[in-house]
Order: sequence, then structure tokens, then C-alpha cells
Amino acid sequence: MEQLNIHPELNTELLNFKLPEKLGFGNIMAPVMFKADYNNGNWESGQLLPYAAISLDPASKVFHFAQILFEGLKAYKVETVHPVLFRPEENWQRLNRSAQRMLMPELPQKLFMQALCSVTAFCQDLIPAKPLHSLYLRPFMIGTQASLSLSASDTFSFYVIASPSGPFKSSPLKVFIERDNTRAAVGGTGHVKVSGNYGAALSSTSNAMNKGYDQPLWLDAVEHRFIEELSIMNFFAVVDKEIVTPKLTDTILPGVTRDSIIRLAKEDGVVVHEQAMDIDDLLFSIKSGSCTELFACGTAAIVTPISVLADKDDQKYELPTLDDPVALRLRKRLLDIQQGQTEDTFGWLCPVPKQDWQIGD
Amino acid sequence: MEQLNIHPELNTELLNFKLPEKLGFGNIMAPVMFKADYNNGNWESGQLLPYAAISLDPASKVFHFAQILFEGLKAYKVETVHPVLFRPEENWQRLNRSAQRMLMPELPQKLFMQALCSVTAFCQDLIPAKPLHSLYLRPFMIGTQASLSLSASDTFSFYVIASPSGPFKSSPLKVFIERDNTRAAVGGTGHVKVSGNYGAALSSTSNAMNKGYDQPLWLDAVEHRFIEELSIMNFFAVVDKEIVTPKLTDTILPGVTRDSIIRLAKEDGVVVHEQAMDIDDLLFSIKSGSCTELFACGTAAIVTPISVLADKDDQKYELPTLDDPVALRLRKRLLDIQQGQTEDTFGWLCPVPKQDWQIGD
Repeated sequence: MEQLNIHPELNTELLNFKLPEKLGFGNIMAPVMFKADYNNGNWESGQLLPYAAISLDPASKVFHFAQILFEGLKAYKVETVHPVLFRPEENWQRLNRSAQRMLMPELPQKLFMQALCSVTAFCQDLIPAKPLHSLYLRPFMIGTQASLSLSASDTFSFYVIASPSGPFKSSPLKVFIERDNTRAAVGGTGHVKVSGNYGAALSSTSNAMNKGYDQPLWLDAVEHRFIEELSIMNFFAVVDKEIVTPKLTDTILPGVTRDSIIRLAKEDGVVVHEQAMDIDDLLFSIKSGSCTELFACGTAAIVTPISVLADKDDQKYELPTLDDPVALRLRKRLLDIQQGQTEDTFGWLCPVPKQDWQIGD
Repeated sequence: MEQLNIHPELNTELLNFKLPEKLGFGNIMAPVMFKADYNNGNWESGQLLPYAAISLDPASKVFHFAQILFEGLKAYKVETVHPVLFRPEENWQRLNRSAQRMLMPELPQKLFMQALCSVTAFCQDLIPAKPLHSLYLRPFMIGTQASLSLSASDTFSFYVIASPSGPFKSSPLKVFIERDNTRAAVGGTGHVKVSGNYGAALSSTSNAMNKGYDQPLWLDAVEHRFIEELSIMNFFAVVDKEIVTPKLTDTILPGVTRDSIIRLAKEDGVVVHEQAMDIDDLLFSIKSGSCTELFACGTAAIVTPISVLADKDDQKYELPTLDDPVALRLRKRLLDIQQGQTEDTFGWLCPVPKQDWQIGD
């Protein structure tokens, strides 16, 4: 399993690849991918391959039962010689929780790290050494068995693809409260990172965007009352100078950035409440002025302030503009660590060592 | 759009294809597939192609956001010269409801029917002319745009693949009441046929099977109390000689077989109640003897009696063995129509006309 097979044409792929001036976020795919197959109850050796189409039998379970999970994390190379991954162990643990919920095989940590490190090392020169730039890494696993019967696949493929990226949308978010559709049910898959959660969210996301907002804010599926998350970000409020964020349940994805923000805030002496958050209480506290900030966080966006929350009747709840908002202070704290601009006292960074393979070997 | 492109090697594929003696259900794939692509806001002409691997960019939305829907229906050729499809218009309408929920393009009825008819006509000689045998057809649509950003794909592919099939498992079902996990949330995607619903169901299905049962019975995600469906079948009870089935909500898939069974029962003078069904009331009525039958229905299984319902504490609620159960009477009524053994007074059968193309043209 620890052996890594390097495709002989990778060097040529890299030489022929031109990094465009304008990157965007997650738009440009690096010319490489990692692949490992799971057959007969075992993960086979990983391969570093040229980025190329995946071939699948039309009856593959990935199509018919969406037996698919994914992860997302970044490698930075701003102040460091070698790229650094941010808390990859958290992604590995979450990937395995997703795998368990979806009847997919656990991925050994060594294989996960081999995949991330080999792709990142290969892309080393494609990672812009500029603030807010990174290599966005997208591990994903799919069920590949060709069978239409409703049962788990017995074969799987694990991939890591990567996108040299610029900053994610950084202007303050306008968020639309989704009072009808829901993202996840108690007893469902909302707490794990499976593709089905996101497909189900497309309609509300588009609906919010058509109304001029950036994202829907999901409420719980039982009472349509308690705040859950944004589709790709967790949700935070600052009320009476203390941070409040929804307590994790089985309908909320436990974000790695969420956890990092909570720890940084606590280290800074800010009180953090993880608790049920009633949307109507929150709207009242925005109106009364006790809630002074809303923000969202996630791997792509890091921390993004929310400037307005809008309800179904198009009533808008605007947040004040502050001189020194908590959100931006935490964003800077986190970015400084991720970009190697301050001491990593939490031990969150994982340097990607020089690989002991030569492309073309 | 109405033009159909026929791959020149299809005839060879068909000649080389050997239908195995033992078919099973959905195991053997016919050597053909229909494909149509959606680009620039339009469906392009369909193609009848040899069954072959689908090639997809690793960043395709189908993998990352499970933008996938599917359908399932059967073509029979038991007493008819040409194969007959059962109520394909219902599948077409449901497919378009799924498409709308998943931000996928509507499929024109002509294209849907062209796909079903061309695949079925091509497979005409592969459909066993035996009772309970059929060609199981699996239309599906996937989002193919390569982009990691959470938005709907702007390109799609629609496929129909087919499986010459024998009877689906016909012995009475043992069903396990799923009191923890849930299948669908109010405001979610339970009422449409999208792959994500099925991936989320794999774990409970496997759990039920490991305990010696065939299927989990889903309860609602709000109170964990009202019966919804089995993962691939709708649920019926016979109480005091009347039929009771859960009323359709946005968490229950409206089965074509469900609708057919309700109509047949009503035509036979049986009272049918579509209403909320409390699981504990049902268990009580099994114990008291007023509930004499449970059964499930779906495209694959048609109608299958349920012999036992088991609860979390392993308590089993067994149904009596009857001389002339309602379930088997309705099953025979429906099969007789599907197989052309009785007059199709409802106009449910859609004969697949002789195609006006010659393979190899």
C-alpha cells in the first residue's frame, strides 16, 4: 500500500501545463491526480497519474446510489519553502466517518497522507506564493461496482485532485433564510461530507442567488426554527461581545475551520457558546442591536462576514459596519497561522516533505 | 432532437451477446445504451451505442454534488409480439419533477420515449417471453460540467441502460422498523428519485440485512412515528379488510406501482385509505388481529407480501397466512395487465413499435 506508482508521462504533463494569470477558486485543475483502488477488501497501491477522465461502467453504484464522499482542504506556500497542509488529520478522520455512514471502506491514514503529499509536492511550483492563494485539494471516493441492486459497492476508487486557487469570494455575504427546503434530517447524512447533501442544496442555493443573495441559511428540518449552517460554511454570531454558534448535531457538518475558529477565539479570551440558535431570537437581537456581527467560515472562504440576513418576506436584517470586527480579527489570526506568518502554537500545520521519488522513475 | 444516431457496431455487439441461463434481477446488462447530451441549453440528438464505460472529468459535478437522478421501469413480452412498456409517461413526469428539484433540465417526452423504445426494440430478442421476466430499463441523468463550485451543472448526459431480468425476490419480506436513521426530511428530496436518497439508505438496509431482515421500514424524520416507505417500495396494510397506505408527502416517493395498485383495488371495490400511519397503532392492530396483511410494491417487486415486521428490541410482529390474501390478488391483477394476459382497460400499456431504423444504417 505504501508503494507509490508514478506515471512516466507526469513530467511532460507538468512541463506542458501553463498556470493562467487569473485563477479564481477551484476553477483550474492541476495536471495530476492520485488514485487508489479498493478491491477484495484491500486498498491497493496508490498511483500518481496525469489528470484524465475517469471511466466507469454505466451501472456503477456511484451513479445509481450516489455512494460518494469527499473532502476539501488547502496547501499554502506563502512564507514557507515547502507547502504546508492545514490540519489534514481532521479531514482524514471526517472522511472515515463519512465512509462509515455510507458503507464505504475506511481509508488508512498513511494512504490519505501519501495522496495529499504526493499531489501537493508534485504541484509545489503551481502554488502561488501569495497571500490568500493556495492549492485546494479535493479527495473523493466513489463506489465503482456495476450493479443496480440497492446494496453497498464492493469496489471503490479514491482520488485526490487539486486546484491552484486564488482567494474565494471575499466580499461580505448576503444570506437568505431558507424557511421551506431543508438540508438534512435527524438520522440522515448531514453530519458527514457526502455528495448527496450538496445536490439537495443546489435548488435553494440557486433560489437565493436569483434573489440577489449569496447563500441560503439552513434551518432544522423538524421545527424549521433552529439555525444549522450554510451549505459549505458554518455559521457564527457575535452577541453582546460573545460568540454563539450552533451546537453540532447529526444535521450539521463539523467544519475544520469551525473548530479552529472556536479554539482561536477561546485562546483570545472570547467566550464561545455552542448552543441551539433560534432564528427568530437572532433576528430580534440584530434588530435590538445586541447582535453586532454574523460571519461564516469554511475551508474555501476561511472567515467571511455576513452583511445582511434576509427573510422570506424580503425583510432585510442588516449588520452594522464595525471598526474592529471579531470576524476579521479571527480571520487574520487563522490566516497568519495557515500562511506561516505567525507561530503555529496549535501544531496545525503539516509540512509536505520533499518526496523521495523522482518523476520519471 | 428526434433524429437517432445508430452506432454501426451495434449489430455485432448483439450477435456476440450471449444471454446467460440464470438472469437474476438487474444483474445482466444488455449490450446497448442510449445517450443524449445537453449542451448550450438544448438536448442534442440521441445515440444508440454499444454498452460501454462512461468517461467523466474527475471534477464533474456528478461526483462532487451528486447531481444525478434516475428512473426504473419494465418492458414485458409475455403474451405480446412486440414488447410493452408499463405506464412510461408516469416515469417521464416523475423524472422531470426530479430534474426540477435538482436543477437539471427537463427532458422532452419525445426524447424520453425515443430512448426507451429504441433500447427496448434493440433488446427485443433478449426479453424472455416468460411470466415474471422482463427488460428492466434504467434511465438516468448526470451533471457533467467540470467545476468544484457549488452550483448546478450546465451540461448533462441522459442515458438509458437495460437489464434482461428474471423475477425479483418473491418470497415474503421480513421488514425491520428503522427507528433511528431516516431517509428523507420535510423540504428535502424524498419525493423525487435522486441517487442521494439511496446512498443515504444503504447503511440501514445493510443493518436490517445483517439482522436477518430484507429491508428497513422508514419512519418520518420529525417524530420517528409515521410510516413512510421501504427504500425501493411503497408500503400497504390491510386493516379490517380495507387498504391503508401512507398519504403522499414530500418525504415519500410516489411509486407508479403504488398508484396502479390503489386504482386496481378501488376498481375491485376495496376501500383504500391514503393517510398518516402511526407505526405503534399499526403494531397494535397486528397484535389485535385487525391488521391481517402487510405488503410492499414497486417496479421491481410488483407486489410482495410482508410476513413479519420487527422492532428495535427484536420483537417480531408476524402476519397470519391467509387463503386468499388481498396482496396476491392485486399482484395477479397487475401482472395480468403488464404481461398482456388480460384486457388493459386502464390504457397502461405502451407497445414498443417496430423501429424505422435498421441497425447498421
